[in-house]
Amino acid sequence: MSDDATSVYRLQVRFCETDLMGVVHHANYLTYCEAARVDWLHKRGISYDNWVRHGIHLPVVEVKVRYKAAAKFDQILDIETVVEEVTRVTVRFRYHMRHGDTLICEAETLLACVGEDLKLKRMPKEVVAVFRSAEVRAEERAPGL
Amino acid sequence: MSDDATSVYRLQVRFCETDLMGVVHHANYLTYCEAARVDWLHKRGISYDNWVRHGIHLPVVEVKVRYKAAAKFDQILDIETVVEEVTRVTVRFRYHMRHGDTLICEAETLLACVGEDLKLKRMPKEVVAVFRSAEVRAEERAPGL
Amino acid sequence: MSDDATSVYRLQVRFCETDLMGVVHHANYLTYCEAARVDWLHKRGISYDNWVRHGIHLPVVEVKVRYKAAAKFDQILDIETVVEEVTRVTVRFRYHMRHGDTLICEAETLLACVGEDLKLKRMPKEVVAVFRSAEVRAEERAPGL
Amino acid sequence: MSDDATSVYRLQVRFCETDLMGVVHHANYLTYCEAARVDWLHKRGISYDNWVRHGIHLPVVEVKVRYKAAAKFDQILDIETVVEEVTRVTVRFRYHMRHGDTLICEAETLLACVGEDLKLKRMPKEVVAVFRSAEVRAEERAPGL
Repeated sequence: MSDDATSVYRLQVRFCETDLMGVVHHANYLTYCEAARVDWLHKRGISYDNWVRHGIHLPVVEVKVRYKAAAKFDQILDIETVVEEVTRVTVRFRYHMRHGDTLICEAETLLACVGEDLKLKRMPKEVVAVFRSAEVRAEERAPGL
Repeated sequence: MSDDATSVYRLQVRFCETDLMGVVHHANYLTYCEAARVDWLHKRGISYDNWVRHGIHLPVVEVKVRYKAAAKFDQILDIETVVEEVTRVTVRFRYHMRHGDTLICEAETLLACVGEDLKLKRMPKEVVAVFRSAEVRAEERAPGL
Repeated sequence: MSDDATSVYRLQVRFCETDLMGVVHHANYLTYCEAARVDWLHKRGISYDNWVRHGIHLPVVEVKVRYKAAAKFDQILDIETVVEEVTRVTVRFRYHMRHGDTLICEAETLLACVGEDLKLKRMPKEVVAVFRSAEVRAEERAPGL
Repeated sequence: MSDDATSVYRLQVRFCETDLMGVVHHANYLTYCEAARVDWLHKRGISYDNWVRHGIHLPVVEVKVRYKAAAKFDQILDIETVVEEVTRVTVRFRYHMRHGDTLICEAETLLACVGEDLKLKRMPKEVVAVFRSAEVRAEERAPGL
Protein backbone atom coordinates (compact mmCIF):
# COMPACT_ATOMS: atom_id res chain seq x y z
CA MET A 1 0.00 0.00 0.00
CA SER A 2 1.17 3.50 -0.71
CA ASP A 3 1.72 6.24 1.84
CA ASP A 4 -1.80 7.35 1.04
CA ALA A 5 -2.99 4.57 3.28
CA THR A 6 -1.23 6.14 6.29
CA SER A 7 -2.60 8.62 8.84
CA VAL A 8 -1.41 9.84 12.21
CA TYR A 9 -3.68 10.16 15.25
CA ARG A 10 -2.68 11.96 18.44
CA LEU A 11 -4.04 11.27 21.90
CA GLN A 12 -3.13 12.00 25.49
CA VAL A 13 -2.94 9.23 28.11
CA ARG A 14 -5.76 9.42 30.65
CA PHE A 15 -5.25 8.77 34.35
CA CYS A 16 -7.74 5.90 34.34
CA GLU A 17 -5.72 4.15 31.63
CA THR A 18 -2.73 3.60 33.91
CA ASP A 19 -2.29 0.71 36.34
CA LEU A 20 -0.46 0.24 39.62
CA MET A 21 2.85 0.01 37.78
CA GLY A 22 2.29 3.68 36.91
CA VAL A 23 2.13 2.98 33.17
CA VAL A 24 -0.62 2.47 30.61
CA HIS A 25 -2.27 -0.93 31.12
CA HIS A 26 -1.42 -3.15 28.16
CA ALA A 27 -5.06 -3.78 27.17
CA ASN A 28 -5.58 -0.05 26.63
CA TYR A 29 -3.26 0.03 23.62
CA LEU A 30 -5.94 -1.90 21.75
CA THR A 31 -8.44 0.84 22.51
CA TYR A 32 -5.89 3.42 21.34
CA CYS A 33 -5.49 1.50 18.06
CA GLU A 34 -9.26 1.45 17.71
CA ALA A 35 -9.48 5.22 18.22
CA ALA A 36 -6.73 5.62 15.61
CA ARG A 37 -8.68 3.43 13.18
CA VAL A 38 -11.87 5.46 13.68
CA ASP A 39 -9.85 8.62 13.07
CA TRP A 40 -8.21 7.06 9.97
CA LEU A 41 -11.73 6.65 8.57
CA HIS A 42 -12.78 10.17 9.58
CA LYS A 43 -9.83 11.48 7.60
CA ARG A 44 -11.27 9.73 4.53
CA GLY A 45 -14.71 11.25 5.07
CA ILE A 46 -16.19 8.18 6.71
CA SER A 47 -18.00 7.81 10.01
CA TYR A 48 -17.70 4.19 11.17
CA ASP A 49 -20.92 4.85 13.00
CA ASN A 50 -22.59 5.36 9.66
CA TRP A 51 -21.34 1.99 8.41
CA VAL A 52 -22.71 0.37 11.56
CA ARG A 53 -26.11 1.94 10.85
CA HIS A 54 -25.94 0.43 7.35
CA GLY A 55 -25.30 -3.02 8.80
CA ILE A 56 -21.58 -3.12 8.07
CA HIS A 57 -19.57 -4.19 11.09
CA LEU A 58 -15.84 -4.77 11.16
CA PRO A 59 -15.01 -6.68 14.32
CA VAL A 60 -11.41 -7.40 15.18
CA VAL A 61 -10.62 -11.08 14.53
CA GLU A 62 -6.91 -11.07 15.27
CA VAL A 63 -4.48 -8.80 17.11
CA LYS A 64 -0.76 -8.75 17.71
CA VAL A 65 0.99 -6.21 19.90
CA ARG A 66 4.67 -5.88 20.71
CA TYR A 67 5.23 -3.53 23.64
CA LYS A 68 8.54 -1.68 23.40
CA ALA A 69 8.41 1.02 26.07
CA ALA A 70 5.93 2.07 28.72
CA ALA A 71 3.67 5.04 28.08
CA LYS A 72 2.80 7.13 31.12
CA PHE A 73 -0.03 9.29 32.37
CA ASP A 74 -0.51 12.54 30.44
CA GLN A 75 1.97 11.69 27.72
CA ILE A 76 1.04 12.58 24.20
CA LEU A 77 1.15 9.61 21.84
CA ASP A 78 1.18 9.65 18.06
CA ILE A 79 -0.23 6.60 16.35
CA GLU A 80 0.79 6.06 12.75
CA THR A 81 -1.86 3.85 11.21
CA VAL A 82 -1.63 2.17 7.83
CA VAL A 83 -3.85 -0.22 5.91
CA GLU A 84 -1.53 -3.03 4.95
CA GLU A 85 -3.78 -5.44 3.13
CA VAL A 86 -7.38 -5.58 1.91
CA THR A 87 -9.10 -8.79 0.83
CA ARG A 88 -12.72 -9.47 -0.06
CA VAL A 89 -13.72 -9.85 3.59
CA THR A 90 -10.82 -8.57 5.68
CA VAL A 91 -8.63 -5.54 6.17
CA ARG A 92 -5.34 -5.47 8.06
CA PHE A 93 -4.18 -2.34 9.87
CA ARG A 94 -0.68 -1.81 11.25
CA TYR A 95 0.18 0.73 13.95
CA HIS A 96 3.32 2.39 15.27
CA MET A 97 2.75 4.26 18.50
CA ARG A 98 5.33 6.82 19.57
CA HIS A 99 5.90 9.29 22.38
CA GLY A 100 8.20 11.82 20.73
CA ASP A 101 10.96 9.65 19.25
CA THR A 102 10.36 6.72 21.56
CA LEU A 103 8.58 3.74 20.01
CA ILE A 104 5.95 2.67 22.53
CA CYS A 105 4.48 -0.27 20.66
CA GLU A 106 3.81 -1.88 17.31
CA ALA A 107 0.47 -3.50 16.67
CA GLU A 108 -1.49 -5.19 13.95
CA THR A 109 -5.22 -5.88 13.77
CA LEU A 110 -7.14 -7.98 11.29
CA LEU A 111 -10.79 -6.95 10.86
CA ALA A 112 -13.43 -8.96 9.10
CA CYS A 113 -16.63 -7.68 7.56
CA VAL A 114 -19.79 -9.14 9.12
CA GLY A 115 -23.50 -8.37 9.02
CA GLU A 116 -25.94 -7.89 11.91
CA ASP A 117 -25.89 -11.68 12.36
CA LEU A 118 -22.13 -11.56 13.02
CA LYS A 119 -21.54 -13.78 9.96
CA LEU A 120 -18.80 -13.00 7.44
CA LYS A 121 -19.91 -11.06 4.40
CA ARG A 122 -18.09 -9.67 1.39
CA MET A 123 -17.11 -6.05 1.83
CA PRO A 124 -19.11 -3.70 -0.41
CA LYS A 125 -16.95 -2.14 -3.17
CA GLU A 126 -17.31 1.32 -1.65
CA VAL A 127 -15.90 0.04 1.63
CA VAL A 128 -12.91 -1.57 -0.12
CA ALA A 129 -12.35 1.68 -2.00
CA VAL A 130 -12.17 3.61 1.26
CA PHE A 131 -9.47 1.32 2.61
CA ARG A 132 -7.38 2.08 -0.47
CA SER A 133 -7.92 5.82 -0.36
CA ALA A 134 -5.91 8.78 0.84
CA GLU A 135 -6.99 11.41 3.36
CA VAL A 136 -9.52 13.90 2.06
CA ARG A 137 -9.30 17.56 2.90
CA ALA A 138 -10.98 18.59 6.16
CA GLU A 139 -13.75 20.47 4.32
CA GLU A 140 -14.77 17.29 2.48
CA ARG A 141 -15.32 15.33 5.63
CA ALA A 142 -18.68 14.57 7.19
CA PRO A 143 -19.83 17.33 9.53
CA GLY A 144 -18.64 16.91 13.08
CA LEU A 145 -15.70 14.68 12.18
CA MET B 1 -37.70 -2.61 52.48
CA SER B 2 -37.09 -5.76 54.47
CA ASP B 3 -33.85 -7.72 54.68
CA ASP B 4 -35.24 -9.85 51.92
CA ALA B 5 -34.23 -7.13 49.53
CA THR B 6 -30.55 -7.56 50.48
CA SER B 7 -27.90 -9.77 48.86
CA VAL B 8 -24.12 -9.96 49.10
CA TYR B 9 -21.85 -10.28 46.07
CA ARG B 10 -18.16 -11.09 46.30
CA LEU B 11 -15.50 -10.15 43.76
CA GLN B 12 -11.73 -9.89 43.58
CA VAL B 13 -9.99 -6.73 42.36
CA ARG B 14 -8.35 -7.16 38.95
CA PHE B 15 -4.96 -5.70 38.08
CA CYS B 16 -6.41 -3.65 35.23
CA GLU B 17 -8.83 -1.99 37.65
CA THR B 18 -6.05 -0.24 39.58
CA ASP B 19 -4.44 3.07 38.62
CA LEU B 20 -1.04 4.62 39.17
CA MET B 21 -1.91 5.38 42.80
CA GLY B 22 -1.91 1.59 43.26
CA VAL B 23 -5.59 1.50 44.19
CA VAL B 24 -8.84 0.76 42.40
CA HIS B 25 -9.70 3.62 40.04
CA HIS B 26 -12.80 5.37 41.36
CA ALA B 27 -14.87 4.80 38.20
CA ASN B 28 -14.54 1.05 38.60
CA TYR B 29 -16.66 1.00 41.75
CA LEU B 30 -19.64 1.76 39.51
CA THR B 31 -18.88 -1.34 37.48
CA TYR B 32 -18.59 -3.32 40.72
CA CYS B 33 -22.02 -2.05 41.79
CA GLU B 34 -23.39 -3.06 38.41
CA ALA B 35 -21.98 -6.57 38.77
CA ALA B 36 -23.53 -6.74 42.25
CA ARG B 37 -26.90 -5.66 40.80
CA VAL B 38 -26.78 -8.32 38.09
CA ASP B 39 -25.95 -10.89 40.78
CA TRP B 40 -28.78 -9.58 42.99
CA LEU B 41 -31.16 -10.39 40.12
CA HIS B 42 -29.57 -13.80 39.50
CA LYS B 43 -30.24 -14.64 43.13
CA ARG B 44 -33.93 -13.95 42.46
CA GLY B 45 -33.98 -16.20 39.41
CA ILE B 46 -33.68 -13.37 36.90
CA SER B 47 -31.23 -12.87 34.08
CA TYR B 48 -31.03 -9.15 33.29
CA ASP B 49 -30.03 -10.27 29.82
CA ASN B 50 -33.44 -11.82 29.47
CA TRP B 51 -35.16 -8.56 30.40
CA VAL B 52 -33.04 -6.79 27.78
CA ARG B 53 -34.19 -9.30 25.16
CA HIS B 54 -37.78 -8.50 26.18
CA GLY B 55 -37.20 -4.80 25.62
CA ILE B 56 -36.88 -3.86 29.29
CA HIS B 57 -33.82 -1.73 29.95
CA LEU B 58 -32.90 -0.19 33.27
CA PRO B 59 -30.24 2.43 32.63
CA VAL B 60 -28.68 4.25 35.53
CA VAL B 61 -30.02 7.80 35.77
CA GLU B 62 -28.32 8.93 38.96
CA VAL B 63 -25.36 7.78 41.04
CA LYS B 64 -23.78 8.85 44.30
CA VAL B 65 -20.60 7.31 45.70
CA ARG B 66 -18.77 8.13 48.91
CA TYR B 67 -15.29 6.62 48.92
CA LYS B 68 -14.12 5.69 52.42
CA ALA B 69 -10.96 3.63 51.96
CA ALA B 70 -8.90 2.49 48.98
CA ALA B 71 -9.32 -1.04 47.67
CA LYS B 72 -6.20 -2.65 46.29
CA PHE B 73 -5.24 -5.21 43.67
CA ASP B 74 -6.30 -8.76 44.47
CA GLN B 75 -8.36 -7.82 47.50
CA ILE B 76 -11.65 -9.59 47.96
CA LEU B 77 -14.59 -7.21 48.27
CA ASP B 78 -18.06 -7.97 49.54
CA ILE B 79 -20.83 -5.78 48.20
CA GLU B 80 -24.03 -5.70 50.22
CA THR B 81 -26.77 -4.62 47.85
CA VAL B 82 -30.27 -3.62 48.84
CA VAL B 83 -33.28 -2.31 46.96
CA GLU B 84 -34.28 0.77 48.86
CA GLU B 85 -37.21 2.10 46.92
CA VAL B 86 -39.36 1.04 43.97
CA THR B 87 -41.69 3.41 42.12
CA ARG B 88 -43.68 2.93 38.92
CA VAL B 89 -40.68 3.72 36.73
CA THR B 90 -37.62 3.68 38.97
CA VAL B 91 -35.75 1.50 41.42
CA ARG B 92 -33.11 2.68 43.87
CA PHE B 93 -30.28 0.36 44.95
CA ARG B 94 -27.90 1.05 47.83
CA TYR B 95 -24.49 -0.61 48.22
CA HIS B 96 -21.97 -1.09 51.03
CA MET B 97 -18.66 -2.38 49.80
CA ARG B 98 -16.28 -3.91 52.34
CA HIS B 99 -12.87 -5.56 52.43
CA GLY B 100 -13.11 -7.65 55.58
CA ASP B 101 -14.30 -5.17 58.19
CA THR B 102 -13.12 -2.10 56.31
CA LEU B 103 -15.81 -0.07 54.60
CA ILE B 104 -14.46 0.75 51.12
CA CYS B 105 -17.38 2.77 49.84
CA GLU B 106 -21.08 3.46 49.99
CA ALA B 107 -23.01 3.99 46.80
CA GLU B 108 -26.52 4.54 45.55
CA THR B 109 -27.87 4.17 42.03
CA LEU B 110 -31.25 5.18 40.65
CA LEU B 111 -32.36 3.15 37.62
CA ALA B 112 -35.25 4.02 35.34
CA CYS B 113 -37.21 1.66 33.15
CA VAL B 114 -37.01 2.51 29.44
CA GLY B 115 -37.89 0.78 26.20
CA GLU B 116 -35.76 0.25 23.09
CA ASP B 117 -36.36 3.92 22.25
CA LEU B 118 -34.68 4.93 25.55
CA LYS B 119 -37.95 6.59 26.65
CA LEU B 120 -39.33 6.10 30.16
CA LYS B 121 -41.92 3.39 30.51
CA ARG B 122 -43.84 1.97 33.43
CA MET B 123 -42.22 -1.11 34.90
CA PRO B 124 -44.23 -4.29 34.24
CA LYS B 125 -45.77 -5.71 37.44
CA GLU B 126 -43.55 -8.79 37.30
CA VAL B 127 -40.48 -6.58 37.28
CA VAL B 128 -41.69 -4.60 40.28
CA ALA B 129 -42.42 -7.88 42.04
CA VAL B 130 -38.84 -9.03 41.53
CA PHE B 131 -37.47 -5.89 43.14
CA ARG B 132 -39.56 -6.66 46.22
CA SER B 133 -38.61 -10.31 46.41
CA ALA B 134 -36.16 -12.36 48.45
CA GLU B 135 -33.44 -14.65 47.13
CA VAL B 136 -34.67 -17.91 45.72
CA ARG B 137 -32.86 -21.15 46.35
CA ALA B 138 -30.04 -21.96 43.92
CA GLU B 139 -32.00 -24.81 42.34
CA GLU B 140 -34.84 -22.45 41.40
CA ARG B 141 -32.57 -20.11 39.47
CA ALA B 142 -32.26 -19.97 35.69
CA PRO B 143 -29.69 -22.44 34.38
CA GLY B 144 -26.19 -21.03 34.18
CA LEU B 145 -26.79 -18.35 36.83
CA MET C 1 -16.25 31.25 42.23
CA SER C 2 -15.94 33.51 39.24
CA ASP C 3 -16.07 32.49 35.61
CA ASP C 4 -12.31 32.34 35.77
CA ALA C 5 -12.69 28.98 37.44
CA THR C 6 -14.43 27.55 34.34
CA SER C 7 -12.92 25.74 31.36
CA VAL C 8 -14.33 23.64 28.53
CA TYR C 9 -12.83 20.34 27.41
CA ARG C 10 -13.84 18.55 24.22
CA LEU C 11 -13.61 14.82 23.58
CA GLN C 12 -15.00 12.28 21.16
CA VAL C 13 -16.72 9.10 22.36
CA ARG C 14 -14.65 5.97 21.70
CA PHE C 15 -16.17 2.71 20.52
CA CYS C 16 -14.90 0.83 23.57
CA GLU C 17 -16.75 3.27 25.82
CA THR C 18 -20.18 2.14 24.62
CA ASP C 19 -22.12 -0.83 25.95
CA LEU C 20 -24.68 -3.20 24.50
CA MET C 21 -27.38 -0.52 24.77
CA GLY C 22 -25.40 1.34 22.10
CA VAL C 23 -24.66 4.28 24.39
CA VAL C 24 -21.77 5.36 26.60
CA HIS C 25 -21.56 3.13 29.68
CA HIS C 26 -22.43 5.21 32.74
CA ALA C 27 -19.12 4.58 34.53
CA ASN C 28 -17.22 6.18 31.67
CA TYR C 29 -18.62 9.62 32.40
CA LEU C 30 -16.46 9.63 35.52
CA THR C 31 -13.39 9.07 33.35
CA TYR C 32 -14.55 11.89 31.07
CA CYS C 33 -14.85 14.19 34.09
CA GLU C 34 -11.36 13.17 35.14
CA ALA C 35 -9.95 13.97 31.70
CA ALA C 36 -11.72 17.34 31.89
CA ARG C 37 -10.15 18.00 35.30
CA VAL C 38 -6.67 17.18 34.04
CA ASP C 39 -7.28 19.53 31.10
CA TRP C 40 -8.58 22.24 33.47
CA LEU C 41 -5.23 22.08 35.25
CA HIS C 42 -3.27 22.07 31.98
CA LYS C 43 -5.05 25.29 31.05
CA ARG C 44 -3.67 26.81 34.26
CA GLY C 45 -0.13 25.71 33.48
CA ILE C 46 -0.22 22.66 35.74
CA SER C 47 0.55 19.04 35.01
CA TYR C 48 -1.24 16.87 37.56
CA ASP C 49 1.50 14.36 36.89
CA ASN C 50 3.95 16.86 38.31
CA TRP C 51 1.92 17.21 41.51
CA VAL C 52 1.89 13.42 41.82
CA ARG C 53 5.68 13.39 41.53
CA HIS C 54 5.79 15.95 44.37
CA GLY C 55 3.69 13.70 46.58
CA ILE C 56 0.42 15.59 46.15
CA HIS C 57 -2.46 13.30 45.27
CA LEU C 58 -6.07 14.35 44.91
CA PRO C 59 -8.20 11.22 44.97
CA VAL C 60 -11.91 11.48 44.44
CA VAL C 61 -13.76 11.02 47.73
CA GLU C 62 -17.31 11.67 46.56
CA VAL C 63 -19.14 11.73 43.23
CA LYS C 64 -22.65 12.53 42.09
CA VAL C 65 -23.84 12.15 38.51
CA ARG C 66 -27.26 12.87 37.04
CA TYR C 67 -27.60 11.34 33.59
CA LYS C 68 -29.91 13.35 31.33
CA ALA C 69 -29.46 11.94 27.83
CA ALA C 70 -27.43 9.14 26.30
CA ALA C 71 -24.20 9.95 24.50
CA LYS C 72 -23.37 7.76 21.54
CA PHE C 73 -20.31 6.45 19.75
CA ASP C 74 -18.30 9.09 17.91
CA GLN C 75 -20.25 12.02 19.30
CA ILE C 76 -18.30 15.07 20.30
CA LEU C 77 -18.90 16.11 23.90
CA ASP C 78 -18.06 19.41 25.53
CA ILE C 79 -17.48 19.31 29.26
CA GLU C 80 -17.77 22.61 31.09
CA THR C 81 -15.78 22.25 34.28
CA VAL C 82 -15.81 24.66 37.19
CA VAL C 83 -14.21 24.71 40.62
CA GLU C 84 -17.07 25.34 42.96
CA GLU C 85 -15.48 25.30 46.38
CA VAL C 86 -11.97 25.05 47.83
CA THR C 87 -11.29 24.25 51.48
CA ARG C 88 -8.02 23.52 53.28
CA VAL C 89 -8.07 19.88 52.22
CA THR C 90 -10.73 19.52 49.53
CA VAL C 91 -11.78 20.92 46.18
CA ARG C 92 -15.17 20.47 44.55
CA PHE C 93 -15.54 20.42 40.76
CA ARG C 94 -18.84 20.61 38.91
CA TYR C 95 -19.34 19.48 35.31
CA HIS C 96 -21.91 20.02 32.58
CA MET C 97 -21.47 17.68 29.66
CA ARG C 98 -23.17 18.57 26.38
CA HIS C 99 -23.45 17.20 22.86
CA GLY C 100 -24.29 20.32 20.90
CA ASP C 101 -27.23 21.81 22.81
CA THR C 102 -28.22 18.55 24.48
CA LEU C 103 -27.29 18.23 28.14
CA ILE C 104 -25.85 14.72 28.54
CA CYS C 105 -25.12 14.82 32.25
CA GLU C 106 -24.32 16.91 35.28
CA ALA C 107 -21.70 15.73 37.71
CA GLU C 108 -19.89 16.80 40.83
CA THR C 109 -16.70 15.41 42.34
CA LEU C 110 -15.13 16.14 45.70
CA LEU C 111 -11.36 15.60 45.80
CA ALA C 112 -9.26 15.48 48.94
CA CYS C 113 -5.56 16.16 49.22
CA VAL C 114 -3.56 13.18 50.51
CA GLY C 115 0.10 12.25 50.70
CA GLU C 116 1.85 9.07 49.56
CA ASP C 117 0.39 7.36 52.66
CA LEU C 118 -3.13 8.14 51.41
CA LYS C 119 -3.76 10.22 54.57
CA LEU C 120 -5.41 13.63 54.38
CA LYS C 121 -3.05 16.57 54.29
CA ARG C 122 -3.53 20.31 54.00
CA MET C 123 -3.25 21.54 50.45
CA PRO C 124 -0.12 23.63 49.86
CA LYS C 125 -0.91 27.31 49.27
CA GLU C 126 0.28 27.10 45.65
CA VAL C 127 -2.19 24.31 45.00
CA VAL C 128 -5.07 26.28 46.49
CA ALA C 129 -4.02 29.26 44.39
CA VAL C 130 -4.25 27.17 41.22
CA PHE C 131 -7.81 26.15 42.01
CA ARG C 132 -8.74 29.83 42.26
CA SER C 133 -6.98 30.86 39.09
CA ALA C 134 -8.02 31.57 35.51
CA GLU C 135 -6.68 29.95 32.36
CA VAL C 136 -3.23 31.08 31.37
CA ARG C 137 -2.34 31.72 27.75
CA ALA C 138 -1.14 28.68 25.80
CA GLU C 139 2.42 29.97 25.64
CA GLU C 140 2.65 30.10 29.44
CA ARG C 141 1.75 26.48 29.86
CA ALA C 142 4.18 23.66 30.63
CA PRO C 143 5.72 22.21 27.46
CA GLY C 144 3.77 19.36 25.99
CA LEU C 145 0.46 20.38 27.54
CA MET D 1 5.24 -28.36 29.66
CA SER D 2 3.17 -31.01 31.36
CA ASP D 3 -0.50 -30.74 32.22
CA ASP D 4 0.64 -29.56 35.62
CA ALA D 5 1.21 -26.18 34.07
CA THR D 6 -2.51 -25.89 33.20
CA SER D 7 -5.33 -24.33 35.24
CA VAL D 8 -8.86 -23.27 34.45
CA TYR D 9 -10.38 -19.97 35.57
CA ARG D 10 -14.06 -19.15 35.35
CA LEU D 11 -15.59 -15.70 35.04
CA GLN D 12 -18.89 -14.13 34.06
CA VAL D 13 -19.08 -11.36 31.46
CA ARG D 14 -19.97 -7.98 32.99
CA PHE D 15 -22.34 -5.54 31.34
CA CYS D 16 -19.66 -2.84 31.15
CA GLU D 17 -17.44 -5.19 29.18
CA THR D 18 -19.77 -5.27 26.18
CA ASP D 19 -19.85 -2.73 23.36
CA LEU D 20 -22.53 -1.45 21.02
CA MET D 21 -22.29 -4.63 18.95
CA GLY D 22 -23.74 -6.37 22.03
CA VAL D 23 -20.62 -8.50 22.52
CA VAL D 24 -17.52 -8.34 24.69
CA HIS D 25 -15.20 -5.60 23.44
CA HIS D 26 -12.06 -7.21 22.04
CA ALA D 27 -9.67 -5.38 24.38
CA ASN D 28 -11.38 -6.94 27.39
CA TYR D 29 -10.16 -10.43 26.52
CA LEU D 30 -6.69 -9.26 27.51
CA THR D 31 -8.01 -8.33 30.94
CA TYR D 32 -9.70 -11.74 31.16
CA CYS D 33 -6.37 -13.41 30.34
CA GLU D 34 -4.72 -11.31 33.02
CA ALA D 35 -7.31 -12.37 35.61
CA ALA D 36 -6.73 -15.99 34.55
CA ARG D 37 -2.96 -15.53 35.01
CA VAL D 38 -3.42 -14.09 38.50
CA ASP D 39 -5.66 -17.03 39.36
CA TRP D 40 -3.11 -19.48 37.88
CA LEU D 41 -0.60 -18.10 40.38
CA HIS D 42 -3.11 -18.21 43.26
CA LYS D 43 -3.58 -21.89 42.53
CA ARG D 44 0.16 -22.35 43.05
CA GLY D 45 0.09 -20.52 46.39
CA ILE D 46 1.37 -17.24 44.96
CA SER D 47 -0.05 -13.75 45.22
CA TYR D 48 1.24 -11.67 42.30
CA ASP D 49 0.72 -8.72 44.59
CA ASN D 50 3.35 -10.16 46.86
CA TRP D 51 5.85 -10.39 44.01
CA VAL D 52 5.13 -6.76 43.15
CA ARG D 53 5.86 -5.79 46.76
CA HIS D 54 9.20 -7.64 46.42
CA GLY D 55 10.07 -5.64 43.32
CA ILE D 56 9.30 -8.38 40.81
CA HIS D 57 7.11 -7.15 37.98
CA LEU D 58 6.07 -9.15 34.96
CA PRO D 59 4.73 -6.75 32.37
CA VAL D 60 3.27 -8.08 29.15
CA VAL D 61 5.70 -7.50 26.27
CA GLU D 62 3.83 -9.29 23.50
CA VAL D 63 0.27 -10.47 22.92
CA LYS D 64 -1.53 -12.36 20.18
CA VAL D 65 -5.26 -13.01 20.18
CA ARG D 66 -7.37 -14.86 17.63
CA TYR D 67 -11.07 -14.19 18.15
CA LYS D 68 -13.24 -17.14 17.13
CA ALA D 69 -16.72 -16.36 18.44
CA ALA D 70 -18.32 -13.48 20.27
CA ALA D 71 -18.89 -13.72 24.01
CA LYS D 72 -22.00 -12.00 25.33
CA PHE D 73 -23.18 -10.31 28.50
CA ASP D 74 -23.64 -12.61 31.46
CA GLN D 75 -22.09 -15.64 29.77
CA ILE D 76 -19.84 -17.82 31.83
CA LEU D 77 -16.39 -18.25 30.29
CA ASP D 78 -13.78 -20.84 31.17
CA ILE D 79 -10.20 -19.87 30.48
CA GLU D 80 -7.72 -22.72 30.24
CA THR D 81 -4.31 -21.23 30.96
CA VAL D 82 -0.99 -22.97 30.45
CA VAL D 83 2.63 -21.91 30.82
CA GLU D 84 4.19 -22.83 27.53
CA GLU D 85 7.77 -21.70 27.87
CA VAL D 86 10.00 -20.25 30.60
CA THR D 87 13.35 -18.62 29.88
CA ARG D 88 15.71 -16.71 32.18
CA VAL D 89 13.75 -13.50 31.77
CA THR D 90 10.44 -14.37 30.13
CA VAL D 91 7.43 -16.62 30.53
CA ARG D 92 4.89 -17.40 27.83
CA PHE D 93 1.26 -18.18 28.71
CA ARG D 94 -1.29 -19.61 26.30
CA TYR D 95 -5.06 -19.36 26.79
CA HIS D 96 -8.13 -21.08 25.41
CA MET D 97 -11.34 -19.31 26.34
CA ARG D 98 -14.60 -21.22 26.00
CA HIS D 99 -18.29 -20.68 26.63
CA GLY D 100 -19.52 -24.24 27.09
CA ASP D 101 -18.15 -26.06 24.05
CA THR D 102 -17.73 -22.92 21.96
CA LEU D 103 -14.19 -21.67 21.55
CA ILE D 104 -14.35 -17.91 22.07
CA CYS D 105 -10.69 -17.07 21.56
CA GLU D 106 -7.12 -18.26 21.72
CA ALA D 107 -4.47 -15.98 23.10
CA GLU D 108 -0.82 -15.92 23.97
CA THR D 109 1.08 -13.47 26.16
CA LEU D 110 4.81 -13.09 26.66
CA LEU D 111 5.79 -11.57 30.01
CA ALA D 112 9.24 -10.29 30.90
CA CYS D 113 10.67 -9.90 34.38
CA VAL D 114 11.60 -6.32 35.23
CA GLY D 115 12.54 -4.41 38.37
CA GLU D 116 11.12 -1.17 39.75
CA ASP D 117 13.12 0.66 37.07
CA LEU D 118 11.20 -1.27 34.37
CA LYS D 119 14.53 -2.77 33.14
CA LEU D 120 14.81 -6.47 32.34
CA LYS D 121 16.15 -8.64 35.11
CA ARG D 122 16.75 -12.35 35.48
CA MET D 123 13.86 -14.15 37.14
CA PRO D 124 14.72 -15.40 40.63
CA LYS D 125 14.93 -19.21 40.80
CA GLU D 126 11.84 -19.39 43.03
CA VAL D 127 9.83 -17.52 40.43
CA VAL D 128 10.95 -19.87 37.66
CA ALA D 129 10.09 -22.81 39.87
CA VAL D 130 6.54 -21.52 40.31
CA PHE D 131 6.03 -21.33 36.55
CA ARG D 132 6.97 -25.00 36.32
CA SER D 133 4.78 -26.11 39.20
CA ALA D 134 1.39 -27.75 39.53
CA GLU D 135 -1.60 -26.46 41.47
CA VAL D 136 -1.30 -26.82 45.22
CA ARG D 137 -4.23 -27.88 47.33
CA ALA D 138 -6.52 -25.08 48.47
CA GLU D 139 -5.38 -25.39 52.08
CA GLU D 140 -1.77 -24.72 51.10
CA ARG D 141 -2.58 -21.45 49.43
CA ALA D 142 -1.97 -18.02 50.90
CA PRO D 143 -4.87 -16.84 53.07
CA GLY D 144 -7.49 -14.94 51.14
CA LEU D 145 -6.66 -16.49 47.78
